[in-house]
Amino acid sequence: MNILITGGAGFIGSHLCDALLKRDHHITVVDNLVLGRKENIAHLLSRNDFIFIEEDLLHEEAMKSIFRQGNFDMVYHLAANSDIQKGGKDPMVDYDLTFHTTFNVLQLMKEFGIKKFFFASTSAIYGETRDVLNEDYGPLKPVSNYGAGKLASEAFISAFSSTYKIQTWITRFPNVVGERFTHGVIYDFIHKLRKNPTELEVLGNGEQCKPYVYVKDLVEGILYVIDHSNDMYNVYMLGSDTRTEVKDIARMVIEEMALDAVIRYTGGDRGWIGDVPEFRYDLAKVNSLGWHAAHDSDDSVRLAIQKALGK
Amino acid sequence: MNILITGGAGFIGSHLCDALLKRDHHITVVDNLVLGRKENIAHLLSRNDFIFIEEDLLHEEAMKSIFRQGNFDMVYHLAANSDIQKGGKDPMVDYDLTFHTTFNVLQLMKEFGIKKFFFASTSAIYGETRDVLNEDYGPLKPVSNYGAGKLASEAFISAFSSTYKIQTWITRFPNVVGERFTHGVIYDFIHKLRKNPTELEVLGNGEQCKPYVYVKDLVEGILYVIDHSNDMYNVYMLGSDTRTEVKDIARMVIEEMALDAVIRYTGGDRGWIGDVPEFRYDLAKVNSLGWHAAHDSDDSVRLAIQKALGK
Repeated sequence: MNILITGGAGFIGSHLCDALLKRDHHITVVDNLVLGRKENIAHLLSRNDFIFIEEDLLHEEAMKSIFRQGNFDMVYHLAANSDIQKGGKDPMVDYDLTFHTTFNVLQLMKEFGIKKFFFASTSAIYGETRDVLNEDYGPLKPVSNYGAGKLASEAFISAFSSTYKIQTWITRFPNVVGERFTHGVIYDFIHKLRKNPTELEVLGNGEQCKPYVYVKDLVEGILYVIDHSNDMYNVYMLGSDTRTEVKDIARMVIEEMALDAVIRYTGGDRGWIGDVPEFRYDLAKVNSLGWHAAHDSDDSVRLAIQKALGK
Repeated sequence: MNILITGGAGFIGSHLCDALLKRDHHITVVDNLVLGRKENIAHLLSRNDFIFIEEDLLHEEAMKSIFRQGNFDMVYHLAANSDIQKGGKDPMVDYDLTFHTTFNVLQLMKEFGIKKFFFASTSAIYGETRDVLNEDYGPLKPVSNYGAGKLASEAFISAFSSTYKIQTWITRFPNVVGERFTHGVIYDFIHKLRKNPTELEVLGNGEQCKPYVYVKDLVEGILYVIDHSNDMYNVYMLGSDTRTEVKDIARMVIEEMALDAVIRYTGGDRGWIGDVPEFRYDLAKVNSLGWHAAHDSDDSVRLAIQKALGK
């Protein structure tokens, strides 16, 4: 297949490139390198089944030309803002990078008659609830512009899929960790401890409790869902039904760095405005397809810390 | 209160102007007159508690100047595309008129510190299901760009309400009928019969079955919900839990026009791509506030036909 991966130089996108190339597809990556990094795909640049194009999805004429030449069978759309805090300060970040990019890709798919689409969605579309989240859960009340940008994307994806007959797979991720990440709690803790090895400041009370999934497990899960589901519109929760508390992540980072740091909590039940302090995944639907993540949440966190430290 | 009504020259918006002016508010209407009509508010233009500004919500500088001078306490955002079929042909219609207008209004509210917001949402955010629709229903899978534009709007409204502390009321309408409507099934039937009084073509098999609500009942419902609910984020289904079949609407129009027309069905279970042939409202939440529409669905349709015929 001829596949376009938007955001393919990013954290999850670059792992998806690796996995799809193992399956003998031809890959074109479009990435504006705002969050993506060329070193994430450096090992792929010399392959003749891989093309990297540095371009912005909001440049409509350039994108039309890429679609005209690409003859794509399927688009994996991963380009998005992934920094929730940044989007809270300026709503245009999620409007442009998360939502507007999706809408432009959908318009291009409609124009060029491409009939298969994958979208990387998120637990953040649900907002704040103690209920266990499944694919049919409502209401959807995002508390961050990040979650809003993803839900707004899903809204138009649903309408385009139905109106223009585009077969669609959506997987909703929890926190994803592992090699090549660019931000997030593990990334922050390691950087803070490198600056000050004696004390670690943790935003909130440390009791935020969420599912974490190792990025390579997640990518296998994406491909498993696409291989094993074939409705016109396929939505799956993907991740882990186990969870890890932030204070345990702090302890694991200190332990793996072999430090003797004191943990200081800033207090309050969440790390920042738009943070969802606690959520829980119901994975019955993807489990019934036959998929389970190879690592549980704690193991994913531990593995990600070790990889980040070059172990 | 100083109130801004976007889309205030439109079908529902102009009735809302009438109702709010009876309550001694000062009203500013912004409408680009794409769907709105100046004659809908002609009777208000000489009042000194009413200002009409012909402007497009996508003109950011002009809108900033309106907000700077307006000193608004609350915004009722009704400006939107309301023609589902038009949006199916060109997704930019709902992107621009329905979604982008909402996002711009939210940004202006954030910038100018306005803390109360009303949004006119729709059953179309749910997509196609035979389940009874309530406020917490999921999944949300719109099948029209119109529904997508409204759901995408709700997504950012939720995030802005939570992040920037904007108290919000959302009511989700079914089909709304009555004086000043600009399109829809009753409008179409009357126009078709004026052209050809002997035959009425009905799109689909006539068995599409939906709740209809009379516009003045709906507007009273909006104000009732705002008066009687006070959470930070208030969502209510508003309309009727009774329904009317399209073939009965056809019969009523022919009867009220005193014609002897034959009805010809084009066949199929829906009128057009993006049409939801059947849905049903659970009004328990708004009923428990104490509100019920004065007219049921059949009476609303009959009344709207009579008003359209100048009876």
